[in-house]
Amino acid sequence: MNDLNPADGELAYDLDRAHVFHSWSAQGALTPFVIAGGAGSTVWDFDGTRYLDFSSQLVNTNIGHQHPAVVGAIKAQADILTTVAPAHANLARGEAAKRILARAGSSFGKVFFTNGGADANENAIRMARLTTGRDKVLSMYRSYHGNTGAAIVATGDWRRVPNEFARGHAHFFGPFAYRSEFWADSPEQESERALQHLERVIQSEGQSGIAAILIETVPGTAGVLVPPPGYLRGVRRLADKYGIVLIFDEVMCGFGRTGEWFAWQAFPDDDGPVVPDLITFAKGVNSGYVPTGGVIISESIANAFETQVFPGGLTYSGHPLAMASIVAALDAMEDDGIIDNARTIGTDHLAPGLAALAAKHPLIGEVRGLGVFWALDLVSDPETREPVSGVVIGQLKKELLSRGLLPFSADNRIHVVPPCIVTPEEVATALAIYDEAFTAVEATL
Amino acid sequence: MNDLNPADGELAYDLDRAHVFHSWSAQGALTPFVIAGGAGSTVWDFDGTRYLDFSSQLVNTNIGHQHPAVVGAIKAQADILTTVAPAHANLARGEAAKRILARAGSSFGKVFFTNGGADANENAIRMARLTTGRDKVLSMYRSYHGNTGAAIVATGDWRRVPNEFARGHAHFFGPFAYRSEFWADSPEQESERALQHLERVIQSEGQSGIAAILIETVPGTAGVLVPPPGYLRGVRRLADKYGIVLIFDEVMCGFGRTGEWFAWQAFPDDDGPVVPDLITFAKGVNSGYVPTGGVIISESIANAFETQVFPGGLTYSGHPLAMASIVAALDAMEDDGIIDNARTIGTDHLAPGLAALAAKHPLIGEVRGLGVFWALDLVSDPETREPVSGVVIGQLKKELLSRGLLPFSADNRIHVVPPCIVTPEEVATALAIYDEAFTAVEATL
Ligand SMILES: Cc1ncc(COP(=O)(O)O)c(C=O)c1O
Ligand SMILES: Cc1ncc(COP(=O)(O)O)c(C=O)c1O
Repeated sequence: MNDLNPADGELAYDLDRAHVFHSWSAQGALTPFVIAGGAGSTVWDFDGTRYLDFSSQLVNTNIGHQHPAVVGAIKAQADILTTVAPAHANLARGEAAKRILARAGSSFGKVFFTNGGADANENAIRMARLTTGRDKVLSMYRSYHGNTGAAIVATGDWRRVPNEFARGHAHFFGPFAYRSEFWADSPEQESERALQHLERVIQSEGQSGIAAILIETVPGTAGVLVPPPGYLRGVRRLADKYGIVLIFDEVMCGFGRTGEWFAWQAFPDDDGPVVPDLITFAKGVNSGYVPTGGVIISESIANAFETQVFPGGLTYSGHPLAMASIVAALDAMEDDGIIDNARTIGTDHLAPGLAALAAKHPLIGEVRGLGVFWALDLVSDPETREPVSGVVIGQLKKELLSRGLLPFSADNRIHVVPPCIVTPEEVATALAIYDEAFTAVEATL
Repeated sequence: MNDLNPADGELAYDLDRAHVFHSWSAQGALTPFVIAGGAGSTVWDFDGTRYLDFSSQLVNTNIGHQHPAVVGAIKAQADILTTVAPAHANLARGEAAKRILARAGSSFGKVFFTNGGADANENAIRMARLTTGRDKVLSMYRSYHGNTGAAIVATGDWRRVPNEFARGHAHFFGPFAYRSEFWADSPEQESERALQHLERVIQSEGQSGIAAILIETVPGTAGVLVPPPGYLRGVRRLADKYGIVLIFDEVMCGFGRTGEWFAWQAFPDDDGPVVPDLITFAKGVNSGYVPTGGVIISESIANAFETQVFPGGLTYSGHPLAMASIVAALDAMEDDGIIDNARTIGTDHLAPGLAALAAKHPLIGEVRGLGVFWALDLVSDPETREPVSGVVIGQLKKELLSRGLLPFSADNRIHVVPPCIVTPEEVATALAIYDEAFTAVEATL
């Protein structure tokens, strides 16, 4: 732990409340938690109180906090060169792209780097529109793809024009057996019906106008909605049938979260894994140590832009500090067996542990997930599956925090999303804390 | 200079060509320049050849390359904590916001941090739309505001809905006396007519539906179009008259580029400077050492979100490494008198030096700028002001690079945009190189 002074915690809090505008909230009622430092699966405040970070912040610190190899690489690159324009080459950028492509496999040709997940999706959508000459993008209602939607249309110069036909967005329902939109009573039926629904949406929106199907391989913030058997393959077949580019958003689920390098590698069938045309990434690729993200581009889409101008870009595309952190993070994940750890933690510790928790606590309606990517779907009534209110979630968060666990919540759910380096002992500690917190909250209901 | 190995330069080039997808270009014909390192106004390649960086990369290294205080702050923060979720407070973020607000003045209340310039504009536009309840955004044809326009509409969850009315974008012509759209024959007349044109666009688009006027205080990539006397004040008056939020995009022109902290501070009139409601920034705030940007929010717009939820955000908002680099960069700019240097370099060295260059070289139709922010508008005929072709720009870039100057070009222009820390001696060297390069190219025409 670095040197801690409680007065710094108060200062950090006061400065934050006075000067910092926060995301996705009304500003008035915020009481931000102040983080002083971290290591591995743990963070601490300025009083030295330690917390197990079972949020991975925003599900991004896959390698844990302050991995020494990644911190070291950032510092080494900082000494050499922090920033260059994207047009100029730098060694770290090529090394990062090479490593990412090696994980994605031979159908992929190039990587375009961005600052985060939103602009990764922006540029994937742009590539799909420009290579198909079509406009519409289909994505799921239960999804989050980023907060951007205006700057290129506000732009006045030529760069607006090739992007201006990009307007059509339509949404469909993905599979979610526990809360089916399709009156299905098994995962297999859910998968089949969800595919039939998607095909009807494609036809109804006008099949020849659809540029892309954009889906989170495993929808994350929406509730860790693990795709049922056959779904991803079915989507791939529909994309092929109608000439649509298939984009997998792996911003949250990629780079170890599911116990594989990419989430789509976790659901192979007899024909192997279901491979998309474009993969978007951010978060886990470097655990967010430096803001970055990007698009992994199929050989054929990359080739389409050999002579055609790609009208997209950003000042910090392929930023050296970010690139050095990607190289170090991917090498460390390989060397330390971090992906394997995430998989084993999932199968041997979180799967049985969370199942036991659900068996004990009526609040937990369903447990879903794999690797270090789990959701507890909380219900006020197990029969009707009525989601619990925000008040219950608020109580639970307080109970968890007061017992030394930093939780992640979304809607009526607690997501159990520790770093991929979490140990069996830390999982055991966390499970005990979840157990106590549920008991405490249930006592008040 | 760090240890250099020419083989690393070849490796960087080959990896780049094999694996990296580049912005704003067809991929086939690219021959990226490989940068190995830099210091101050200089960069070098892996052969040890040094170049004066009169591009500041993408006009972002205002403090020069590898300023030791900023590099030191990044390394120190890397040792403490690289990343936290935006909802949690961290000390560097509050300190950064405080310093930025101190420069903007008392009408501003809070800072919202983003990853770069595009998402700064995204969130400023969102604030304007949500506080006015109106849809349309007016911006200039001659402008660049970023490459994003789709991710939030592709998003399926609730976060899409409050952003979905955000569709209307209309464009108007800003003042540009050298290539007037208004048949004006003086800067004063250009200003007056440009304002009349803007008011007619406001009325014609429907005054009660316009949320924001978004302008670069000094349009940058469009050609360093210094606003003529009275223009900014006139825009402010129109915004007030029609209840429109005024956003100044200071991504390129802010934080020292014009010789002031903000470009709008460079054009005061009898009533003082013209103050916008929202300021967007990126680049110069930390010289791009870590990807970051943001919105400086007026007290009154910040207050509007005390109880109303702000539906925007991003994983790396207020990223600790970026925040630490802002704190160090702003302190160093203050301590080292870097803003004053940029102003003096402009008035005493670049203004007269570039005027002399223009007097000598018929290719240079107009010189425009202030501080370390200048454009040479190149023409094939001084009478008709016909822009030179891309071939001439290509030749010039080659001649400049071969003489040891890394140039910035856009359309028919060379932008003279060194870091704010550039010395009189470096300017003299650069002016001599520009002179030789123009002579060499003119000899071939
Ligand atoms: C699946 C998914 N896509 C995109 C994003 C947006 O990423 P960013 O916040 O880096 O813009 C997120 C962020 O949580 C995400 O979970
Ligand atoms: C005035 C202006 N606004 C916005 C942007 C976009 O910034 P970014 O590339 O960081 O998204 C730029 C980039 O050059 C710019 O010059």
